[in-house]
Amino acid sequence: MRSALRTGTGPIRRTPLSTPTRLHAGVHGLGVRLARGPPIASLNASPSSCFHSKSADRSEALGSAAKLPDAKTVPPATPRERITIADIKERRAKAGRLVAPTAAYSDADMFKAPSTGKPKAKRWDHHLTKESTLREPCKLKQAAKYLKQPGLISLGGGLPCPEYFPIASLDLRIPVPPHFSESATASLGEDAHIGKYDASLSTPAAPEYDLSIALNYGQANGSAQLTRFVTEHTELVGAPPYADWRTSLTVGSTGALEQALRMLCDGPGRRDALLTEEFSFSTALETAAPLGVALVGVPMDDQGLLPESMDAILSRWDPAERGGARKPHVLYTVPSGQNPTGATQSERRRREIYEVARRHDVFILEDEPYYYLQMQQPGTEPPRSVDEFLDGLIPTYLSMDVDGRVLRMDSFSKVVVPGSRLGWITASEQIVERFIRHAEVANQGPSGFSQVILHKLLDERWGHEGYLRWLMHLRMEYTKRRDVIVKACEEFLPRELVSWNPPQAGMFHWLKVNHELHPHASTKSILEMEEEIFNRCIAKGVLVARGSWFRAEQNAPPSGLYFRTTFAAATPENMTEAIRRLGEAVRESFKM
Amino acid sequence: MRSALRTGTGPIRRTPLSTPTRLHAGVHGLGVRLARGPPIASLNASPSSCFHSKSADRSEALGSAAKLPDAKTVPPATPRERITIADIKERRAKAGRLVAPTAAYSDADMFKAPSTGKPKAKRWDHHLTKESTLREPCKLKQAAKYLKQPGLISLGGGLPCPEYFPIASLDLRIPVPPHFSESATASLGEDAHIGKYDASLSTPAAPEYDLSIALNYGQANGSAQLTRFVTEHTELVGAPPYADWRTSLTVGSTGALEQALRMLCDGPGRRDALLTEEFSFSTALETAAPLGVALVGVPMDDQGLLPESMDAILSRWDPAERGGARKPHVLYTVPSGQNPTGATQSERRRREIYEVARRHDVFILEDEPYYYLQMQQPGTEPPRSVDEFLDGLIPTYLSMDVDGRVLRMDSFSKVVVPGSRLGWITASEQIVERFIRHAEVANQGPSGFSQVILHKLLDERWGHEGYLRWLMHLRMEYTKRRDVIVKACEEFLPRELVSWNPPQAGMFHWLKVNHELHPHASTKSILEMEEEIFNRCIAKGVLVARGSWFRAEQNAPPSGLYFRTTFAAATPENMTEAIRRLGEAVRESFKM
Repeated sequence: MRSALRTGTGPIRRTPLSTPTRLHAGVHGLGVRLARGPPIASLNASPSSCFHSKSADRSEALGSAAKLPDAKTVPPATPRERITIADIKERRAKAGRLVAPTAAYSDADMFKAPSTGKPKAKRWDHHLTKESTLREPCKLKQAAKYLKQPGLISLGGGLPCPEYFPIASLDLRIPVPPHFSESATASLGEDAHIGKYDASLSTPAAPEYDLSIALNYGQANGSAQLTRFVTEHTELVGAPPYADWRTSLTVGSTGALEQALRMLCDGPGRRDALLTEEFSFSTALETAAPLGVALVGVPMDDQGLLPESMDAILSRWDPAERGGARKPHVLYTVPSGQNPTGATQSERRRREIYEVARRHDVFILEDEPYYYLQMQQPGTEPPRSVDEFLDGLIPTYLSMDVDGRVLRMDSFSKVVVPGSRLGWITASEQIVERFIRHAEVANQGPSGFSQVILHKLLDERWGHEGYLRWLMHLRMEYTKRRDVIVKACEEFLPRELVSWNPPQAGMFHWLKVNHELHPHASTKSILEMEEEIFNRCIAKGVLVARGSWFRAEQNAPPSGLYFRTTFAAATPENMTEAIRRLGEAVRESFKM
Repeated sequence: MRSALRTGTGPIRRTPLSTPTRLHAGVHGLGVRLARGPPIASLNASPSSCFHSKSADRSEALGSAAKLPDAKTVPPATPRERITIADIKERRAKAGRLVAPTAAYSDADMFKAPSTGKPKAKRWDHHLTKESTLREPCKLKQAAKYLKQPGLISLGGGLPCPEYFPIASLDLRIPVPPHFSESATASLGEDAHIGKYDASLSTPAAPEYDLSIALNYGQANGSAQLTRFVTEHTELVGAPPYADWRTSLTVGSTGALEQALRMLCDGPGRRDALLTEEFSFSTALETAAPLGVALVGVPMDDQGLLPESMDAILSRWDPAERGGARKPHVLYTVPSGQNPTGATQSERRRREIYEVARRHDVFILEDEPYYYLQMQQPGTEPPRSVDEFLDGLIPTYLSMDVDGRVLRMDSFSKVVVPGSRLGWITASEQIVERFIRHAEVANQGPSGFSQVILHKLLDERWGHEGYLRWLMHLRMEYTKRRDVIVKACEEFLPRELVSWNPPQAGMFHWLKVNHELHPHASTKSILEMEEEIFNRCIAKGVLVARGSWFRAEQNAPPSGLYFRTTFAAATPENMTEAIRRLGEAVRESFKM
């Protein structure tokens, strides 16, 4: 049996407070055979066939689509490898209580299922920037290895004494699954207590985390306590198929992306360029541009990025035609509920894109803040169990990543709270190690308040079952909201001018306006029309996002007239009224 | 009367939850004459005359010291400009309740005293890196300006609805000043409650911050609520003497430094080099090196960095002798309780260094995590009031910064909790604006949990008076600890071999070992001796930090044999025992 963690029997040794300590890792690497369920049906039905758009003007492909040479080159989907919650409970019971004191070192290997028989990831030295390769481990953190020596007193690290942390305890009022609404929380919720020295209590059921640990310095990849949770969560959804995958907590995916770009893309030196969707997350564009990294927008259809277009761009790449930029070797994509278009790549689409990436040795940055907001399709039944929920999720790039060429970014922003500034990445050990070296100087890891609060809520109180129930609740809430905005569009937007695909995931609803039908189409540019409609909207009291804000290639001529709306926040009444105002603005602009 | 903030009368309008809103800034910029106290005695007595080192072997200058050409060129110290707590209370009373909803824009100008008659800071375009100048404002955040339009409904920004934040409230158990010990907190402390929608309550005394605001997306420079606190705190200590100074919250000074270096130093392109103390914070060195920025170590004495040496290095700079590096234009310094040497620059020393910086147009990064840990000198009485405490602090570079060439980094890590990952910078508006543009992609600002908790504790419950009392308490605790380690050194270390200056600030105690007296001095290098003593220490059960880890110029020959110890964390008994073991190790190494 795997016993990577010390059991809870015996007195808990209070480690000298100034000293980061390795987890008391016992025997490491003993193979354990985990029971695996039956192969899961791999290919979901193509999402676009699951719902019907009531829009008369179904959006055509947003860009030209070349035919893939041979569909057979897409490898057959292999069963997704998923651990079960029962597996995790069994594993934890055998490992015993987690002992992870102040600044304890940890990594995913301590918590994940053994990878016996799996190959290692490929190496990515040729992708890394010089800046990344120059990063050395933090000397002071290296010295922590001596701290496990019994009886050693440390005068080494400048960690303050928790005696001087002026917060004795924190109490949270939280829902008890599955009673998640605000009113249910008020009546049926519970209080969760976080004391300062809870983890030092000698009772077997003592908490595994407390304020004295969380509020002191820690490792830049985050606490062992939360590392365990996100590692297990990744296994529940679908672990990578290679052996040496790791995780690291982050300060959110915005920061994680900047770190990833600095790790892989060198604008001034190597003339690197970044592939992304034709319309992409504007903050990502604003991250890449100052780094001197050229942006390359790949055409999309209603399922998002087109693999044939990506293949064509890469196959035909000529630096002379691209301002001297070298052939891109990194792709940034938001596969589910893409920002801004709301498009969701099917499993087949993801496999096709992965194959193009393999063909051209492209590294993939998979940014999935909306992954769990894959909504209910009209006319289908919601999942009744967490297993059904997990089965219904589209497989991640990570889960099909045979090479180790994917860095996946997960975030708690859209599914718990944005103010946590907390997420995690999953990638090969080489990549995660380089990432952590940068985190040691970029942010030193996420807030200890965020970590200890989310650990108490998600791990200790809800557990994986409760958290997955929460996600199931959330996706139904977003489903209702999506349905409100789509209904409002059907009711109030002029169908002859405006078209859309109801989003299957995320929080954005992307509207295409047929600029060719504009009375001034021959004299006004698309950007001028866009600005005019935008300003009319403001005058009528509705704020939308202009599609041009999201264009990856700001210097290329616009391919169409678009607006991004969100159904995340306004009340149903306000959303409906806002769409009505938008409809008026469009009609007036087109002089109808 | 200045009325930059809406008063609390009338119903509180519940802003649409998806929309960042400007503070309801009323009339901005009306001059208000604040009452100013009498000029404060400016020059503290030179700290090194305030205490006596019992070490027989007083440390000589750690480097050669050229004589300053003319002491008269140091401008006479002008009275430090400090607001009082009474001023702040009066200002807040006139401004009324702070109304700062989700993602509200804010800046220091909204909260600080008017700067009528003061000149603006100089411009630093010539110092900024290309990467910094390329940063554009975040388009989505720019759109927020429309949100103040009455009745406007936003479908613009992807901010989730707080209805889906699964935490209804947070309660903290905190000390009531001045009863700060853990036992006093248990018996005399209080509970502080943070609800989800507290700031929307219509009572005049309603809290100004709540979970619905703090846990949603915010501005990258942080919340208005905490911006006000840190801005006022900066005024209490000594505001800059120019008009357009600003603040921004940070994710801690480690991250702030990386941002500052990327803003000002370009290694590969401009061959920039960074001036710092000969022995400097190892993490800072590890931040600069991957950026390709050459490190230049400036000799020190017991008061830290030597201005004459800095002047000489800059005056004689020849790129050909420096591997092609161009003349440095940025200085990174830790003026109080310097890491690793524990040295503290007197006021006069700071003014001299500032003058050298002016002479050579050097930008100053003032990193002051230990500023408030300026300890009690033996034989002197502790301050009895917060005014005495503030009077006793050495003036900051910021407070003497007539040009606006200082970026000051403050942090809550060593004075509240490291796990907050929270601090702030103060600098000119130009510099702070560039910093925020990077924060928008590097981290999006600090954790909302950290912000709302620290605001509740420091601002709402303790207020400035209570917080300053806390700092007074903390410095006495560190004074006691310092006294323990110094006493242990006097008792157990061989005075003929080991010398030190008792630190006046911070948490580090720097020991110099006279390597020339080593029996193998002629055959062993300093680094070999250092390694040997270090390993002996480990074998005896004490961990210290090797001085060589902190050398700014790792390729230069070591100037001496040093070890850094900390008195921050170990118990007095453990500290004393650890020093005893260290003494044994040194004696054995020198075969005594």
